[in-house]
Amino acid sequence: MVNRKLWEGIINEYKEFMPVRENTKIITLQEGNTPLIFAEKLSNKLDIELYLKYEGVNPTGSFKDRGMTLAVTKAVENGDKAIICASTGNTSASAAAYGSKAGLKTVVIIPEGKIALGKLTQALMHGSIVIPIKGNFDNALDITRKIAANYPITLVNSLNPYRIEGQKSAAFEVCDQLGGVSPDILAIPVGNAGNITAYWKGFKEYYQAQRTNKLPKMLGFEAEGSAAIVKKQVINSPETIATAIRIGNPVNWEKAVDAATESKGSIDFVTDEEILDAYKELALEGVFAEPASAASVAGIKKYVKLNKIGKGSKVVAVLTGHGLKDPDTALSTIQTPEAVEPNLDKILNLIGL
Amino acid sequence: MVNRKLWEGIINEYKEFMPVRENTKIITLQEGNTPLIFAEKLSNKLDIELYLKYEGVNPTGSFKDRGMTLAVTKAVENGDKAIICASTGNTSASAAAYGSKAGLKTVVIIPEGKIALGKLTQALMHGSIVIPIKGNFDNALDITRKIAANYPITLVNSLNPYRIEGQKSAAFEVCDQLGGVSPDILAIPVGNAGNITAYWKGFKEYYQAQRTNKLPKMLGFEAEGSAAIVKKQVINSPETIATAIRIGNPVNWEKAVDAATESKGSIDFVTDEEILDAYKELALEGVFAEPASAASVAGIKKYVKLNKIGKGSKVVAVLTGHGLKDPDTALSTIQTPEAVEPNLDKILNLIGL
Repeated sequence: MVNRKLWEGIINEYKEFMPVRENTKIITLQEGNTPLIFAEKLSNKLDIELYLKYEGVNPTGSFKDRGMTLAVTKAVENGDKAIICASTGNTSASAAAYGSKAGLKTVVIIPEGKIALGKLTQALMHGSIVIPIKGNFDNALDITRKIAANYPITLVNSLNPYRIEGQKSAAFEVCDQLGGVSPDILAIPVGNAGNITAYWKGFKEYYQAQRTNKLPKMLGFEAEGSAAIVKKQVINSPETIATAIRIGNPVNWEKAVDAATESKGSIDFVTDEEILDAYKELALEGVFAEPASAASVAGIKKYVKLNKIGKGSKVVAVLTGHGLKDPDTALSTIQTPEAVEPNLDKILNLIGL
Repeated sequence: MVNRKLWEGIINEYKEFMPVRENTKIITLQEGNTPLIFAEKLSNKLDIELYLKYEGVNPTGSFKDRGMTLAVTKAVENGDKAIICASTGNTSASAAAYGSKAGLKTVVIIPEGKIALGKLTQALMHGSIVIPIKGNFDNALDITRKIAANYPITLVNSLNPYRIEGQKSAAFEVCDQLGGVSPDILAIPVGNAGNITAYWKGFKEYYQAQRTNKLPKMLGFEAEGSAAIVKKQVINSPETIATAIRIGNPVNWEKAVDAATESKGSIDFVTDEEILDAYKELALEGVFAEPASAASVAGIKKYVKLNKIGKGSKVVAVLTGHGLKDPDTALSTIQTPEAVEPNLDKILNLIGL
């Protein structure tokens, strides 16, 4: 009889790929090891083999924790006392959690009224200084960069290279979960474009280390209303229901294009309507993701229809955040039922028994 | 170079302790393997060694997934076509997710207006038939039992014995995460009293299998306004901010008392004020749990003060659900900041730079 070795967070688990020293104090909430769920209904419908990488099952409910554990670990190693980020919500929630865990002063700059309810709540609860500004994400990032460049406070946006280094662990996990095999296609939402960059780096490193059999094709999907990369122009007033990717001037623009090009993939966009359809279909697989997450699945559906994804392909869709992050969008898409008296016949009738 | 073996859900990982056959089709969202986080600030403050079992990091954001994977797996094995539960919210979210994954018709009966926003959203998104009734949880459970007893629909409340069998896996994980060692004390919120029953069963089985060195003392904490077990009477109109444990007539009442007695522990209550204080302190450890979860930590603080927990004790607090389940309670305890113009001096001033 042997005791199970449980997960110790992505830095400890993939240490040989992480830029830490043997004695580095690791700031972790034991992020990672998220589910890779076979989507039975969608696979049958689309005639592919579709898996969902459910990143909502991280401590703060999004993939951002993978990068934040490393960014905050390195900040502490460096003796920093404060961190700052601009955010559409998930980054701030993660920075707030890891910042509080490490005892750092944490500042988050967010666009007023444009972040999902759950995410705002997280940043506030974890004791960050939360500053909503009148402007969009890109404005928030501009001012954040200025402050970090000129004052003793460390930037933990994805301009911080450790964020990408941590996030690449998700690609390792996908290959490990598939038994040392890469998917044919990795589909992923694109907002600030850090995550597609990180996955591609991860797949390449794992291939080089002979832990996976090949490289996947990377398909990135922006929301139509903030599709700067696809439209090849900065979008000054991005608009989409997928608030987590509502970014008009992605920081990792060129790297994302490189990932798509090198992998013989592409970056495209999906409409809000396509996103909402995919969002609802995902929930019927037992997986509740935030709207932006559904851009990956919406993109897969679009590409299957266009015959750009072949029958039987092994496809992984990255679902970046948990549906609980954004209850308002969920409730706006469904009808809430009215309360009834606890009368047996009445209830049997509603159930259809 | 070896690929990591990632987590496959609690039934696969602890199969020798689970009532399934070799060829049972397992319905899983890869629940379990949740973080056990050392609470540095609270440990220092209370002069104990405190760990947080963060059950919010399950697919639907609560510990209920551990029991639901087994209850739904067994329902499918049995050829059942429909499941039903009454719920204060977490059970319904979990039943809805696993029910949709398995393709079962899923019915959830909830007390009107008394379940947290996120949980209602989950049940609806996953396509359940959601029936809010005019009454409290105990009324909802009464009618649910009647329906399950007389119609072809399987009850997945914790009266279903497989729920407890699945939930006991959390005790296994705690021992594994501590390196084959049991904590001195396991502190846990008590609502319907199924979880304390499940942990105690798990600790006993693991001890018998020689995977842990001893048995812990079990400390269960009800909320004062629904403290039926402590007050030794059914409470007809339970009231507490901790909606997940707002239950006036716990189903597993006797088994919970047995767990406390056998382990030389106890069941006590904490006030809503103590719960909210602990809730806020937890967030400063980087861990955002729902209010009911904080009952465990509130109880630990109370018992340290009363010298009922000795200095240096190894204590595990079970945090049953994620804070994102209940954004409204969070926002009611904190002040939301006002938006400012993106003016550098103004923002530097707010940051204190």
